[in-house]
Amino acid sequence: MILGVDHVGVAVESLEAALRFWQGSLGLTPEHSEALAAQGVRTVLLPAAGVRIELLEPTGPETPVGKFLARRGPGLHHVCLLVDDLDAALRELAASGLRLIDPVARPGVEGSRIAFLHPETGLGVLVELKEAVRR
Amino acid sequence: MILGVDHVGVAVESLEAALRFWQGSLGLTPEHSEALAAQGVRTVLLPAAGVRIELLEPTGPETPVGKFLARRGPGLHHVCLLVDDLDAALRELAASGLRLIDPVARPGVEGSRIAFLHPETGLGVLVELKEAVRR
Repeated sequence: MILGVDHVGVAVESLEAALRFWQGSLGLTPEHSEALAAQGVRTVLLPAAGVRIELLEPTGPETPVGKFLARRGPGLHHVCLLVDDLDAALRELAASGLRLIDPVARPGVEGSRIAFLHPETGLGVLVELKEAVRR
Repeated sequence: MILGVDHVGVAVESLEAALRFWQGSLGLTPEHSEALAAQGVRTVLLPAAGVRIELLEPTGPETPVGKFLARRGPGLHHVCLLVDDLDAALRELAASGLRLIDPVARPGVEGSRIAFLHPETGLGVLVELKEAVRR
């Protein structure tokens, strides 16, 4: 089912301050930035040999990332795993009794199809599944 | 400086319960397990196409991971980035004013050389640097 890790999501108070660390200090280079209005988040993706660090800045306190920051502070937010067939994976995981935030796929950054499992299911880890794009 | 992501560390209350999710539900296969007495932790590494999920179960409450669990509960713990020359990276980062937990390299799993940056420096993210092994 799992093809690999696509990215690690990081909740940040400020993209500008976070980029001073990830780009300025560590030398990663942003390759894509996008605002996801439906999620209330602005993102910047920084590749590190295939896997990417995804910085997530909320657009307001009532967004999912805004609530995360208020509850836990900035830091690691989620891990995104690549799957070959997202619909099949969601059916299979739901049938095995796992709790899903998104029982059906929804749009992610870069036109992707994604879904989140519930962190309770991941024993505290918020796992995002993303369908690999056939090239 | 950064060659890629080596693994994502996950703090768990119980390796057995965590493996039911990561292996049983998601289908990842453990490739290595090791107890690091000096860190008070038992680890299992599960590869997902190059990047690995590292489960971390503390051996007691007074260990770094034990304290993390008490403070924040189980979940994403750190991200480990590969570097070509760890000593040079640590010198460079310290010179640029970053706060390091380990100013000099120390042993990690599989005989690796590692060092942690301070989470304050990573804006809430605990970043581990690991020296890539020359093959």
